[in-house]
Amino acid sequence: MSEKGFTGSLSEAEINELKTVATHCRGDILKMTTLAASGHPGGSMSSIDMYLTVYKYANINKDNCKSFTRDRIFVSHGHTSPGVYSTLARNGFFPVQDAIAYFRLAGSIYEGHIERMVPGVEWSTGNLGQGLSAACGAAVAGRMRGEEFDIYVFMGDGEQQKGQIPEARRFAAKYGYNNITAFIDYNKLQISGSIASVMPQNIRGEFEADGWHVIEIDGHNYTQIFNAVAASKKIEKPVLILANTIMSFGVSFMENIAGYHGKPLTEAQLADALKELGIENDIEALKAKRAAFKFSYAAHELVQEPAKIFTGAPRTYAVTDKTDNRSAFGDALLDVVKDTKANGGTPVAVFDCDLAGSVKTDGVEKHCPENFVQAGIQEHHTATCAGAASVNGVVSFFADFGVFGVDEAYNQQRLNDINGSNLKVATTHVGLDVGEDGKTHQCLDYVGAMRNIYGFKVIVPGDPNQTDRAVRYAAAAQGNFLIAMGRSKIPTVAKADGTPFFAGDYKFEYGKADVITEGDAAFVTYGAMLPRALKVVKLAAEKGVKLALINMSCPLEPDMELLKKYASKTIFVYEDHNANTGLGAIIGAKAAEEGLGLRVKTFGVRSYAYSGNPDGILKLLGLDEETVAAEAVRASKQ
Amino acid sequence: MSEKGFTGSLSEAEINELKTVATHCRGDILKMTTLAASGHPGGSMSSIDMYLTVYKYANINKDNCKSFTRDRIFVSHGHTSPGVYSTLARNGFFPVQDAIAYFRLAGSIYEGHIERMVPGVEWSTGNLGQGLSAACGAAVAGRMRGEEFDIYVFMGDGEQQKGQIPEARRFAAKYGYNNITAFIDYNKLQISGSIASVMPQNIRGEFEADGWHVIEIDGHNYTQIFNAVAASKKIEKPVLILANTIMSFGVSFMENIAGYHGKPLTEAQLADALKELGIENDIEALKAKRAAFKFSYAAHELVQEPAKIFTGAPRTYAVTDKTDNRSAFGDALLDVVKDTKANGGTPVAVFDCDLAGSVKTDGVEKHCPENFVQAGIQEHHTATCAGAASVNGVVSFFADFGVFGVDEAYNQQRLNDINGSNLKVATTHVGLDVGEDGKTHQCLDYVGAMRNIYGFKVIVPGDPNQTDRAVRYAAAAQGNFLIAMGRSKIPTVAKADGTPFFAGDYKFEYGKADVITEGDAAFVTYGAMLPRALKVVKLAAEKGVKLALINMSCPLEPDMELLKKYASKTIFVYEDHNANTGLGAIIGAKAAEEGLGLRVKTFGVRSYAYSGNPDGILKLLGLDEETVAAEAVRASKQ
Repeated sequence: MSEKGFTGSLSEAEINELKTVATHCRGDILKMTTLAASGHPGGSMSSIDMYLTVYKYANINKDNCKSFTRDRIFVSHGHTSPGVYSTLARNGFFPVQDAIAYFRLAGSIYEGHIERMVPGVEWSTGNLGQGLSAACGAAVAGRMRGEEFDIYVFMGDGEQQKGQIPEARRFAAKYGYNNITAFIDYNKLQISGSIASVMPQNIRGEFEADGWHVIEIDGHNYTQIFNAVAASKKIEKPVLILANTIMSFGVSFMENIAGYHGKPLTEAQLADALKELGIENDIEALKAKRAAFKFSYAAHELVQEPAKIFTGAPRTYAVTDKTDNRSAFGDALLDVVKDTKANGGTPVAVFDCDLAGSVKTDGVEKHCPENFVQAGIQEHHTATCAGAASVNGVVSFFADFGVFGVDEAYNQQRLNDINGSNLKVATTHVGLDVGEDGKTHQCLDYVGAMRNIYGFKVIVPGDPNQTDRAVRYAAAAQGNFLIAMGRSKIPTVAKADGTPFFAGDYKFEYGKADVITEGDAAFVTYGAMLPRALKVVKLAAEKGVKLALINMSCPLEPDMELLKKYASKTIFVYEDHNANTGLGAIIGAKAAEEGLGLRVKTFGVRSYAYSGNPDGILKLLGLDEETVAAEAVRASKQ
Repeated sequence: MSEKGFTGSLSEAEINELKTVATHCRGDILKMTTLAASGHPGGSMSSIDMYLTVYKYANINKDNCKSFTRDRIFVSHGHTSPGVYSTLARNGFFPVQDAIAYFRLAGSIYEGHIERMVPGVEWSTGNLGQGLSAACGAAVAGRMRGEEFDIYVFMGDGEQQKGQIPEARRFAAKYGYNNITAFIDYNKLQISGSIASVMPQNIRGEFEADGWHVIEIDGHNYTQIFNAVAASKKIEKPVLILANTIMSFGVSFMENIAGYHGKPLTEAQLADALKELGIENDIEALKAKRAAFKFSYAAHELVQEPAKIFTGAPRTYAVTDKTDNRSAFGDALLDVVKDTKANGGTPVAVFDCDLAGSVKTDGVEKHCPENFVQAGIQEHHTATCAGAASVNGVVSFFADFGVFGVDEAYNQQRLNDINGSNLKVATTHVGLDVGEDGKTHQCLDYVGAMRNIYGFKVIVPGDPNQTDRAVRYAAAAQGNFLIAMGRSKIPTVAKADGTPFFAGDYKFEYGKADVITEGDAAFVTYGAMLPRALKVVKLAAEKGVKLALINMSCPLEPDMELLKKYASKTIFVYEDHNANTGLGAIIGAKAAEEGLGLRVKTFGVRSYAYSGNPDGILKLLGLDEETVAAEAVRASKQ
């Protein structure tokens, strides 16, 4: 970091210094891609002059790059990793020879697309169109924390085709995040050729329509880059710097050739290029260094300051109450937001996509509007934004219907998880319990989809009391959670003595199953099916079959020790979920892995369903209490 | 349909007729939502005048609504189903009392959001932002089939926030689909309140920036609606008709109240509203009819004319060849495209998102450019567009990297499947076999994600010969397929006699496992792991353990009968996939379901991985051939 920042103008000496470093960086880029025999030199070389100028004068360096007040630099076209690594190395973040030698080597942190464990990298990208949303996340966190810093975003021109970018653009304009300055490396080429032929786009017109100010420059001219950034600080809008560049700029025989988007030079070509740049060719030494690489797990860890969340006292719903889990969620969330604020903890950011009234974040909207972010019907942007905010000093809740928060934003959640976010996705209206909205709105994969995403934990609470406690638990626990809830009002589950089951001494513990009633054969359920399961158990008892009702609110971590006790009989699983990928399938898979020889019978959803109230739909699907009880009784007596 | 179409102008009599019907429709809308005690009256009543005008004068009616040359009317804001059903009924598609009485009733086709089994509905929507992409799909199919028709798309204003819409907009402009006329029901309210407060948007500016012509009208004025459509026919651009409307227009006490987006009237309010409209209140008769509803499976079936695909002769790769499955895919696909064209079959549309050279559809691009659709880096739009094209008279192939075709477009594939599409998603670069691109590009859930989507079949071929045959099979088979392939060149699998395994008499059969080598314990694999598995088997044999190598290229349908033979020993599964959700987990789940008592040991990916070549990554993860063979040997000897 320079004390200078983006004030005044660049001197000749400063320009010459940038030029010199840029030449070295171009050499670095070419060496690392040739050495790895893969990677993206073209875009790296068209972006490099901007990277160098911004990293040099922005408030970010090796020492402050974990502080919350640093400037943020997001690179959305993560395939320009050679350019980013070279820039960071030349600015002292890590040794340049390491980045060159270990680029794209299995086990190295210098991955093919930039990853957040590399010092100075704000967000792992590579799947295009994410960077501006991530930058907005940092802006949300900064404002909520009351910290002032500047945010820079570098994007490719091809990726402007991604629909997530206009979503982010409107969001930034709505909230007046005028500390965002975005660059587009406008080299006018994408993999398949010219942008004009692949997908013509009026980039300037689109940004202006969405309320941004656009400055057009020569992206290889340091003075123009510097002055444009300086100018952006005085403009009361988010600013786009549309930088005309030349792909592979700096090496004559590579310039403007689309093929160099993702193709390295051969060693012979590299020698010619380095000669033209006037850079020493130390490829043999680099090869030797590469061959001697030592893997370290620690280098891959995403270290983060733990959030401080105050969860207040749980609320207890009486057994005479009947409410919906989503309301219990909304009330618990409001408690957490208020209590954490009162105790000076980590701010909680609550993101909504135009459904606050349904997903019950309207309490936060009303009582703590400064913690509430209305992002409109823009789930892709919002998921990324919420994820990125959560690694910038807030804890994020993103509440939505299941089909939007899980299915529509599935890849965004995957990328959040790769980024080690601290995100709580709260989805309501999961399963068939969506009111009468029909199959497009039935999220039948809230367990099965999330099971693919390594870091996410899934909680599907069984009643309002468990919801209350699970929400407070997830808020305070570090890491990504999905909390899934239906829409309907359901009864409070009671103990035999008539007191609420999930209250009093009860504490939510991730992965712990709850034995609601004792019995001979395990009847396992979760979520909004719990009250229905109670009825099944009652009906079965009337036929002389005693089912042990087990609530497994953490379907990704079924309690296999408990199930072993029931191994001599069929294990029944009753779930409002795709039967192929829900708890029944998970129990089966784990049983086979552990060699337990369990027999599992799943009462779950086996096809797209109908539109109607849950009672009616479940009956049509043979999943109503009477049918399930009769089948369980028959199977138990076999 | 009227012979008149959109020529001339509306007479007083015609306007009066529309007015009269519109009043009835408003009554229908209010009755059905009150009867169902849910649904969306507000938007239905702001869109209804446009629906009626367009359905009346467009070339679509009950009799031609399955013909390929009809005009298409897509409704993107599927929650306006009451308006759509009422319009269709009043135009003779089905009895109006049926739609009113059975709306949102479990088992009825009149679902909460419009669904394609309803006569006259082109595409099931409800998840917003899909309709324009679906309309583009019809445009693609029409052009490829050489048929001329007009396409109308109705959208909400809130849904303009969805990023998929700008993607579709640019696509339509690029390809000059000037037969598309889109409407936006601009009532300026969304669920959470005014659009200006939720997410301000310059809709006109955005459409114009993307090359559309915009006509602004009063959406309740029949003459303006008619004239705007007539004008759109003469404009050499896609046209947006931005229709200023009033939410819940037509009933004084409902107008401009955001709450009526998704809230029905009470019966008392309904009585008042019907009185104001001058419509008879027959709610009691409707209740009786609703109570007598009879469910029919047949009504829910999506009937479609089967495609005629000519698959040509398979290509055979010699055992001395080493190629990648994606190249075998590209060559087979080109054969299918050409052969089907030569024989006058159903056109094959091949969709690309700027990766043709990598996913090997560049052969089709070069040799059959009229079958090739370059959609840019716009996966959400492209997935929907390809899906919708496939129900409009073409067979669609959408080729992409795994993380884009499966993960990024996950919800779009789900909605395609609900729509009964005939789509072949061909993803390359799945698993860790992505070159050195790193974790953001590693699609580890191509089985586990798709397993949630009921209709999709998944094929992961084991070598180029099997790829060739699987591609031809999937092209000709009706329905949705994912064909998943790695990036690397792999050897051709041979029989003991040295001839290619998947050639000669071999025929691809969905769900059939291939026993590559006989042995005592089952060692199951698929995809690009097959050649590695061959090495594992060899290494194990050297240690005295004879593994039966089984290739299961259809991991959603493991051959359990075959596995039963090996039930006395541990079943090994070796997969380039998330170990929680891949073939190992599926076999385990099925075994538990069938009570087979299998013990399954999965060698799969248990965390996000590294960036590097597959050999190097697999070694770091303990999934290299030596480690796996040693573990399999140890487990076999226990």
